[in-house]
Amino acid sequence: MYRSHSCGELRASHINTDVTLSGWVQKSRDKGFMIWVDLRDRYGITQLIFDEERTPKSIMEQAQKLGREFVIQVKGTVIERESKNKNIPTGDIEVLVKELTILNESKLPPFTIEDETDGGEELRMKYRYIDIRRNPVKNNLIFRSKVTQEVRNFLSNQGFIEVETPYLIKSTPEGARDFVVPSRMNEGQFYALPQSPQTFKQLLMVGGMDKYFQIVKCFRDEDLRADRQPEFTQIDCEMAFVEQEDILNVFEDLTRHLLKEVNGVEVEKFPRMLYDDAMRLYGNDKPDIRFGMQFGELNDVAQHKDFGVFNNAELVVGIAVPDAASYTRKEIDKLIDWVKRPQVGALGMVYVKCNEDGTYKSSVDKFYDQDDLAKWAEKTGAKAGDLICILSGDTNKVRAQLSALRMEMAERLGLRKPNEFAPLWVIDFPLLELDEETGHYHAMHHPFTSPKPGQIELLDTKPGDVKANAYDLVLNGNEIGGGSIRIHDKETQAIMLKHLGFSEEEAKAQFGFLMDAFEYGAPPHGGLAFGLDRLVAILGGQETIRDFIAFPKNNGGRDVMIDAPAPIDDEQLDELNLSLKLNS
Amino acid sequence: MYRSHSCGELRASHINTDVTLSGWVQKSRDKGFMIWVDLRDRYGITQLIFDEERTPKSIMEQAQKLGREFVIQVKGTVIERESKNKNIPTGDIEVLVKELTILNESKLPPFTIEDETDGGEELRMKYRYIDIRRNPVKNNLIFRSKVTQEVRNFLSNQGFIEVETPYLIKSTPEGARDFVVPSRMNEGQFYALPQSPQTFKQLLMVGGMDKYFQIVKCFRDEDLRADRQPEFTQIDCEMAFVEQEDILNVFEDLTRHLLKEVNGVEVEKFPRMLYDDAMRLYGNDKPDIRFGMQFGELNDVAQHKDFGVFNNAELVVGIAVPDAASYTRKEIDKLIDWVKRPQVGALGMVYVKCNEDGTYKSSVDKFYDQDDLAKWAEKTGAKAGDLICILSGDTNKVRAQLSALRMEMAERLGLRKPNEFAPLWVIDFPLLELDEETGHYHAMHHPFTSPKPGQIELLDTKPGDVKANAYDLVLNGNEIGGGSIRIHDKETQAIMLKHLGFSEEEAKAQFGFLMDAFEYGAPPHGGLAFGLDRLVAILGGQETIRDFIAFPKNNGGRDVMIDAPAPIDDEQLDELNLSLKLNS
Repeated sequence: MYRSHSCGELRASHINTDVTLSGWVQKSRDKGFMIWVDLRDRYGITQLIFDEERTPKSIMEQAQKLGREFVIQVKGTVIERESKNKNIPTGDIEVLVKELTILNESKLPPFTIEDETDGGEELRMKYRYIDIRRNPVKNNLIFRSKVTQEVRNFLSNQGFIEVETPYLIKSTPEGARDFVVPSRMNEGQFYALPQSPQTFKQLLMVGGMDKYFQIVKCFRDEDLRADRQPEFTQIDCEMAFVEQEDILNVFEDLTRHLLKEVNGVEVEKFPRMLYDDAMRLYGNDKPDIRFGMQFGELNDVAQHKDFGVFNNAELVVGIAVPDAASYTRKEIDKLIDWVKRPQVGALGMVYVKCNEDGTYKSSVDKFYDQDDLAKWAEKTGAKAGDLICILSGDTNKVRAQLSALRMEMAERLGLRKPNEFAPLWVIDFPLLELDEETGHYHAMHHPFTSPKPGQIELLDTKPGDVKANAYDLVLNGNEIGGGSIRIHDKETQAIMLKHLGFSEEEAKAQFGFLMDAFEYGAPPHGGLAFGLDRLVAILGGQETIRDFIAFPKNNGGRDVMIDAPAPIDDEQLDELNLSLKLNS
Repeated sequence: MYRSHSCGELRASHINTDVTLSGWVQKSRDKGFMIWVDLRDRYGITQLIFDEERTPKSIMEQAQKLGREFVIQVKGTVIERESKNKNIPTGDIEVLVKELTILNESKLPPFTIEDETDGGEELRMKYRYIDIRRNPVKNNLIFRSKVTQEVRNFLSNQGFIEVETPYLIKSTPEGARDFVVPSRMNEGQFYALPQSPQTFKQLLMVGGMDKYFQIVKCFRDEDLRADRQPEFTQIDCEMAFVEQEDILNVFEDLTRHLLKEVNGVEVEKFPRMLYDDAMRLYGNDKPDIRFGMQFGELNDVAQHKDFGVFNNAELVVGIAVPDAASYTRKEIDKLIDWVKRPQVGALGMVYVKCNEDGTYKSSVDKFYDQDDLAKWAEKTGAKAGDLICILSGDTNKVRAQLSALRMEMAERLGLRKPNEFAPLWVIDFPLLELDEETGHYHAMHHPFTSPKPGQIELLDTKPGDVKANAYDLVLNGNEIGGGSIRIHDKETQAIMLKHLGFSEEEAKAQFGFLMDAFEYGAPPHGGLAFGLDRLVAILGGQETIRDFIAFPKNNGGRDVMIDAPAPIDDEQLDELNLSLKLNS
């Protein structure tokens, strides 16, 4: 038996007990006649004491040689500590060591195993197995495990069945971003790895499973942004015989359950916001509503004077930044530089200082008088002491720009508090989205999303106006989940695919099995998928998902890691080439 | 709202309640003035009644057109049923329908949705989404979900952390049976899909996670036997600072927990059997101990007469088949044919009838007298009325043959009772296994398994004799789990890999990251993995794993199913060819 207790377990009540502990040497202090060692495991740290008066000489000598991260086992007696350490739960005691076994030595670790380590990102990734010993990473992994367990408990209690769907699925012609897997047993043929179990969960609804969920890996072979992974985890859910209202209620309850069990936070009924309102008030379909600074549209009150920039703009829109009227000219110039950065892309910014005496001072005083500016203040909700920041231009662009500025100002003002949670449903998403490059419409959510009742006729005339039974769950400015009520009849699915540019043959080849299934008694159904990686990070009060993944891929898999791709040997290559040639 | 109650919910206490139900038409009986419909959902069946005196005419007409598997919603009132059906929980009531909505029509289903269906295996697989509506399949999937939830509850309560490990991992030169995944972002390079998360879980132990588990898909690109899948699910577990005893205890407790929670069966302490004893007594490393028929080795008492077949055999071994002395000559001849089938491969079989009067009648009476046969009876534990079946030949072969015969006889005698559970630990497996074709040794478990203390020196002299800290959990004659105490120091791992035929370079290329990790304070560790698919099937009292998988692959993925591989389009092919060429 390697241990009788963990390193986080012993208390004053254990004094005089003989114990066996195992763990890692966190640090040691050698005073010659006495050596103290902090012994660490997943559960905590216990101080060991080697004392030349009470510890055999041979063990004292061994103890002197212990290096950081050596793995040791000790037997000894729990004694009261002279100078208690109130910062750790085991701080009342120490273990007087009588026997010592070195279970494994360690080279000097490449960085310190401390909450604040001296190791940079790259080094920590390379030696991830050492990084995981650090509390912040270890606790994040434990936190993630706790979240998934709570998700499963909640959904199981609600009658959801966890069903595993296949990872090796049929590759579909359109799947340009699928990872493909050559099949050795089926020469010239390929599996694909699922981007989501979407069609399988719909088949389970056709199969009468009624309430399905799965915590499941999904895959996308894309050039990924910094904090995205080619493999990611979804909490995937689907229900039959439901309307949007049913789904929102169930998954709102799930989210509330998590916030309570995992964060100890009670949250009221989640507000709901129309997609159109989210865009109008926050310039964004995933607004962070922990703070205000709602958009005020100013066309009515800003396009009646000679200021051409505003007069020529599709949209003039501003926000009132609280307590920023004291910004110096230099600070404001910096802010203007910030909005002009290519990542934001504004051409400039108009500002209005709302002075404490009720007057206004703006960068466009020569065009607008105090009455005009008072109206702007009213529209943006600005109070004395606020700074109104105004952008103008094409509606979509200027909304995105002002949204970026709003988030930046919130960050600077400390309004994005990680331990404050503001969930929000955004509903009534458009069914289709115009690809401005190609001029084609594609499904905003996915091709299985149903249009709002009675709107299917609009597909021919005003496709961009059709709203979908689609919804996103937003938490603190991040989309943590999204879903829709699905199409469940073959005709509607066919119409939808036609509008997405599929020929009849393509539709049949790619989605024929699903449409066939719809002919054998498909119930109305809908669902939602949470992005577990982001959900966990946000509940954990952070926004970096990588710190909550045991073995993340660096920059989307490019860097050398233990899980990076590698060349394969000639024999395999031959087999695969053969397989490819046969297919072409 | 589609329903106020499920189809399995209404009881006599609901009489006079107005309800809304949704579900599938299981069947309907039309008597003209009255129509009865069985409405089905996941939760049960409720009888609907349409009655020309009480139901509007238009609804009667609609009801007449309802076909099997139509999806409908009805509103009505719960009334007492005239002729109660004691076979279903809702049998006291029926719902008098006032409103009817057809939510979706259905073509005539290709087979009946009954416990005993008229659909053959192939048809049921093709229309799996309809097959899943049948109780046996539906209940199996619910059963599987319950098993995994109980596994998670148990392990979480024991302090295990569920950690997700990567699915896209580094492909290794030896991985001839890996599925490989070309990486578009890393031209000429390939990921592999994991055959198990073995090395990752060991890295988690090096990382101090202490107790890890994961229910995880694994992949093998092999020509598979009928009831194996190229993707399968493991309950993968690992613990640090443990000896074999600790691991056996934890996972015995887990298995006992499952048997109790899922099957309602209490099982005593699991027996343990040495691998060598399992081979000697059952000819098999996964003996079914629900019944006896232990092997009796007869060399001592059968090689002293003139019967050359026995005298020339390495092993003469028999079993006493209970109550089979009454077998006719014809039946015994058939049994001899059975053991001579190529799948079994015996050259013949000697038998002894143990007569009720204490005499013996054997097929070798001209070589052996009653005293000889009495000794055989003693060695095989045969009683009056038993039939002793004896095979002879090379030890390994004859053991496998007699093991097959033992299982066959148990099957015929009804001794393999699906609801009786006999778990067993088989321990002290050999470290290495001789490949008789190549003459090379390979790891019986895997290359990370540690030899028994003090035996590593034997690797040079008697490699086949070295025992490992390896163990299997056997349930009813099936291996449901297996594991080992791992090597945790670089030197031992290097020696092991050398003996497995790896050059130093190969070892470094393939397992360098693990051996490097061992140099930074790797704790002693070990673990176990359960094969979830088989575990679930056996707990479910069946041996066909496919019926417990929502979307299984047919014959290892060869047949046309929705999840079968398919050709990919030219554009993708070009990309992959490019990638392959760059690599060659």
